[in-house]
Amino acid sequence: MTAKRPVVGVFDSGVGGLTALRELMLQVPQADYLYFGDTARLPYGSKSAETVAKYAISAAQYLEQQGAEHLVVACNTATALALDAITRAMTISVLGVIEPGAANAAASSKSGKVVVIATEGTCNSHAYKNALGQLGVAAQEKACPLFVPLVEEGWTDHPVTEQVAHLYLDDIFNGDFASADALVLGCTHYPLLKTLLRRVVPEHVAIVDSAEATARYMAEKLGLKSAGNFGHPNVKFFATDSEEKFRKAGEKFLGRIIEDVRHVNLET
Amino acid sequence: MTAKRPVVGVFDSGVGGLTALRELMLQVPQADYLYFGDTARLPYGSKSAETVAKYAISAAQYLEQQGAEHLVVACNTATALALDAITRAMTISVLGVIEPGAANAAASSKSGKVVVIATEGTCNSHAYKNALGQLGVAAQEKACPLFVPLVEEGWTDHPVTEQVAHLYLDDIFNGDFASADALVLGCTHYPLLKTLLRRVVPEHVAIVDSAEATARYMAEKLGLKSAGNFGHPNVKFFATDSEEKFRKAGEKFLGRIIEDVRHVNLET
Repeated sequence: MTAKRPVVGVFDSGVGGLTALRELMLQVPQADYLYFGDTARLPYGSKSAETVAKYAISAAQYLEQQGAEHLVVACNTATALALDAITRAMTISVLGVIEPGAANAAASSKSGKVVVIATEGTCNSHAYKNALGQLGVAAQEKACPLFVPLVEEGWTDHPVTEQVAHLYLDDIFNGDFASADALVLGCTHYPLLKTLLRRVVPEHVAIVDSAEATARYMAEKLGLKSAGNFGHPNVKFFATDSEEKFRKAGEKFLGRIIEDVRHVNLET
Repeated sequence: MTAKRPVVGVFDSGVGGLTALRELMLQVPQADYLYFGDTARLPYGSKSAETVAKYAISAAQYLEQQGAEHLVVACNTATALALDAITRAMTISVLGVIEPGAANAAASSKSGKVVVIATEGTCNSHAYKNALGQLGVAAQEKACPLFVPLVEEGWTDHPVTEQVAHLYLDDIFNGDFASADALVLGCTHYPLLKTLLRRVVPEHVAIVDSAEATARYMAEKLGLKSAGNFGHPNVKFFATDSEEKFRKAGEKFLGRIIEDVRHVNLET
């Protein structure tokens, strides 16, 4: 018997969410995927809640029209600022990255203190702090606005990036949060800095990738086990700026060749 | 006799163009200004020509509807990728920043070699190289994508920024363009790095600010002299993302308090 493969829509402001798609394809290979990158309007991280919600809802609705049966909001900023608004606007189930990321961090922390790094928008919303607080864990949030451009410059293992990481993080791990034992990567670009951040934060600190946690959560939600041979997920890509730019930038994040990108115009 | 003050519309993807507005207010105080920052859709520097042209035209048309009699495209990327398209879409006169910047660089160069730093989009278009070539000057263009986020982080005089500037520029000034004697600031954010860049590039290199050159050009075009007492220009600001964010970020670029920001929604 061949069961129908569920179709999961994955949405991000750009190519960063491909780190979440990569995890989903690994952990939920039984599904097919539609990925939407709002590249004409990125980044979301520095914009207001109203603007982010408006953009995110139009993108999410487009994925539903294209046949998505479940939606993953792979963008931390969109999850932080607009998850409720997106969920209200959709008829399909919606999963953000913050709840799974926070749950995973709480499970791995013994000290009850964790540090969250994210965009300005995500930090200002305190979405992680609130989610972790409900799990009895204290969080220190730190906006790291230079990490996204540094990753996009390709400087994922560069001395300048390491210096910037020390400037952002040393004070925190030497201060009130010296006993913090988890660092949450609260932005889809940050998994590409995992190796570098491992050198920057103290050894006892676990690095928690929200994208990874979300994929695991999705597998449970769909009641799927990742064992067995399910063939390769079928993936279609949609981008609001040029297809070629999406393909070129995206392959670093997805870790594989990207084909079949379709340009979408969401503005009239 | 009190002559009617001309109304000049100034348009940029965000707050960077306020460096051009500042120069215009200094050099053309006889005019009143309307400034439009497309903050909901910024940045333009990394986006495709089609997307940039679409955004720029809608913003320019909005300024014309608001009463602008002349338009300054203060954004280098929009000038590079879409000046012709914007000019065709408008009935008022349109001035970009590249032609004045290139003319100024050519006038100040004795060696006939200059270096242009700008966004990826501006560099890939070779708009500066072409404009300088027509004036008999050879140009080496260098995209510096980290400069905008470093300026926005407030690190305009920071060791990290200086290191990044050396990484971007040292090879050029030690190579084929060792005799270059002008550095063109081909992005509206870069004037805030002038002091730092002065330390990074060789002493004999003149730093040419396209915004400054454009303001001078505008004064000539309007047949105005800056001497005399003209009162203060009246300025209205329009932004597509939050008014508060525009005000906060913009004051650093304009060098004065910003009031009267109006939110504009260009998308339906």
